[in-house]
Amino acid sequence: MKKINTSPIAGAQELLPKAQAKFDQLKSKITDIYQQHGFLHIETPIIERSEILFAKAGGETEKQIYKVFKTGESGAKTKEALRFDHTVPLARYVVEHENDLAFPFKVTQVARNFRGERPQKGRFRELYQCDIDVIGRNTLSLSYDADIIATLLEAFEAFDLKTPVLARISNRKILSGILEELKLREHSAEIYHIIDHAEKVTIEKTKSDLEELKLEKSIVKKLLDFIKLNGERSEVITSLLNMEIKNAKFNEGVNELDQILHLLETMELGEKISADMKIVRGLDYYTGTVFEFILPEYKNIGSVCGGGRYDNLATYFSDKTSFPGVGGSIGLTRLFSIFEELKLIKKSENILTDYAIIPVTEAEVEYAFSTAKDLRGKDKSSTVVLLDKKYSDKMSYAAKVARSGIVIGKEEVESGRLEAKNFETGEYEIVSGIAVENPLSDPSDFWAD
Amino acid sequence: MKKINTSPIAGAQELLPKAQAKFDQLKSKITDIYQQHGFLHIETPIIERSEILFAKAGGETEKQIYKVFKTGESGAKTKEALRFDHTVPLARYVVEHENDLAFPFKVTQVARNFRGERPQKGRFRELYQCDIDVIGRNTLSLSYDADIIATLLEAFEAFDLKTPVLARISNRKILSGILEELKLREHSAEIYHIIDHAEKVTIEKTKSDLEELKLEKSIVKKLLDFIKLNGERSEVITSLLNMEIKNAKFNEGVNELDQILHLLETMELGEKISADMKIVRGLDYYTGTVFEFILPEYKNIGSVCGGGRYDNLATYFSDKTSFPGVGGSIGLTRLFSIFEELKLIKKSENILTDYAIIPVTEAEVEYAFSTAKDLRGKDKSSTVVLLDKKYSDKMSYAAKVARSGIVIGKEEVESGRLEAKNFETGEYEIVSGIAVENPLSDPSDFWAD
Repeated sequence: MKKINTSPIAGAQELLPKAQAKFDQLKSKITDIYQQHGFLHIETPIIERSEILFAKAGGETEKQIYKVFKTGESGAKTKEALRFDHTVPLARYVVEHENDLAFPFKVTQVARNFRGERPQKGRFRELYQCDIDVIGRNTLSLSYDADIIATLLEAFEAFDLKTPVLARISNRKILSGILEELKLREHSAEIYHIIDHAEKVTIEKTKSDLEELKLEKSIVKKLLDFIKLNGERSEVITSLLNMEIKNAKFNEGVNELDQILHLLETMELGEKISADMKIVRGLDYYTGTVFEFILPEYKNIGSVCGGGRYDNLATYFSDKTSFPGVGGSIGLTRLFSIFEELKLIKKSENILTDYAIIPVTEAEVEYAFSTAKDLRGKDKSSTVVLLDKKYSDKMSYAAKVARSGIVIGKEEVESGRLEAKNFETGEYEIVSGIAVENPLSDPSDFWAD
Repeated sequence: MKKINTSPIAGAQELLPKAQAKFDQLKSKITDIYQQHGFLHIETPIIERSEILFAKAGGETEKQIYKVFKTGESGAKTKEALRFDHTVPLARYVVEHENDLAFPFKVTQVARNFRGERPQKGRFRELYQCDIDVIGRNTLSLSYDADIIATLLEAFEAFDLKTPVLARISNRKILSGILEELKLREHSAEIYHIIDHAEKVTIEKTKSDLEELKLEKSIVKKLLDFIKLNGERSEVITSLLNMEIKNAKFNEGVNELDQILHLLETMELGEKISADMKIVRGLDYYTGTVFEFILPEYKNIGSVCGGGRYDNLATYFSDKTSFPGVGGSIGLTRLFSIFEELKLIKKSENILTDYAIIPVTEAEVEYAFSTAKDLRGKDKSSTVVLLDKKYSDKMSYAAKVARSGIVIGKEEVESGRLEAKNFETGEYEIVSGIAVENPLSDPSDFWAD
């Protein structure tokens, strides 16, 4: 009987070993792609000094920060808290280690962050975020924006999903230039908000939201026409230029967007990208390129990856140097729960252990361990089954933990001739002391039990 | 100028990318070996309900537990805390998921734990612990004790250290039987403590510590003779049997130790193990096999790995089923700092990125990205260097982030003939669009800059 409630905390994802293996496969695909693209891995402490975290946080985020204190100390006076994202610790890291880093600093962080969310579907209090960023010192080439998007698209490619992914890309300077030109800067926060939400509501609702700001009809129309723009590069760029906005920032934004999309096309990613003026990335700190990935066949799950360009990573920590950056993040904990629920991953690869080796009696235990060692030498994972139960129980255990089973009795020890049964296909292969060969056509009746 | 203190919290290990890459290599060697041996990976939440953590904690550990609470809530009333080890969450996990697990459950956890230690050398507040455990339901074969020790020894083998490692092994039943037989059970806590500390003090000090317990001279001698026993299996086992202790528990312990050592010998690990009666593992909850690994050439750093057998993992959470287990743990954060300080790792493997690709002008950026993609297709990591600086600055940056550099100018784009310079050896290799070939004997003067 349980003496105590043994469930994990609400809002945490605790997986059984098979699901964990799938999760780990996704994570390692992401980190492999990131490292293949030259992003250097770093880890920052999970606990940060509160003044670091609160320097940037604000609004909803601030309320979600977990503070920590040691038993025997007072929580009220604590100066430490758990990080809620990778960006703030990265900013601290870059300022702290500036002289030891090579800029542009291509960096990746893949680890858990902590948010005191009200537990609900799709919201996690411990969440894996898989970030990449390129941080420049004072300047940073625009092409890195394309590098980030391409890397993230390749990660999704590696997932081998049943459904396509689409990167929707915009540039904040475009809207910002329009608002400048139309003298709407006092309304910019509201307009960003309305556009950010345009996806979730009807076009009529967006229209009435804009009208509530008491804007001229012609301006509302201009904005509505603008946010509808999406699709292939040359088309959207032409439509933007046809708006005839005479504003330097607008032109800069259009030009940057054109360049990035073009570069992505040369990377043969044209089919997976779309210019899309609805993308503004909420009230975040982005200043140029912004992007969100969606699964177009599953629009209701929203964005599955996002990021953009920011002028200065370290605004809050340093005022000598500026650190312009561009980055993106895959929220893996949520993504995994979506993939599982919708069964979007084409096939699970070989999981758990390759071979379970089952000695029939105590006398074969040594031989079993030595066989396991041989197999590991051939890069096959293998485990010896030591279970004081009847034969069928041993086999049923073996089938739960491994792909194939090898029974070792007196006869096998004498002959050195071992057979492995694949539990899924029922096929046999000969596993001699040295070489693992092809499936047997004539399976031994050893397995007839 | 820094506006704020940007150092990480005291007692955390924050690494630069090169050191992080080394750390990650160690970690992945450990996890590879664990998984090769059939240990299934799980992750439990970092935040646990306090009642779970405090069910087992006590003494020093309890004072070191970090409690957490959300901004706006009261720390005094919080019911959540950060896990301080993997064992307590594992116990909770096993009880919670008992019906979905296959027993014996071979499980591994590799992640950070949190302890509010006073920061000092070798003590970390965030520490990676790399645990393996085998958990049985009601029973668990003794051979798993050898499986655990062998797996951990193989992990150390994979580190490729300049110095040997030695697993010192004992069994708590032996000492426990002696104390029973000599009617010393009332002193057992003190005697365990004295033996656990015997290593750090002279034999005279140990003797006087035992004498302080007002034991008979002959008994002190017997205990001193006992704790001096160490070495090769048959020798130590013979000496133990010669003690002529007529006690069932003693005999059971000697027999178990003999069996485990023998099994490890058949695994060709005889050179790396030693029976050693000084090993008791402090006041921990072990009930049978106990072991500690040391680096015999660096005795002063103490134990680098430890573990043992416990009768019931889940004593605190369940009273229906017993879950006997055996496990061990590598404290990776401390181990890495030792390896670095003493330079114990033979060689660092290829770290960071394989190729940095340096376009000479904007015109070669697309070609550079396409070259990078080709190289990644051949499983070579590669990054495009986009830096609006003079040639020598680009090269010096490239040498910091990658093993080799490939400069792409107009000529290279036209000829498709690319050369990669290895920054360390100064050697060149031809990297064509498709095949990576051997070093050139006649390096291009492109690099004469």
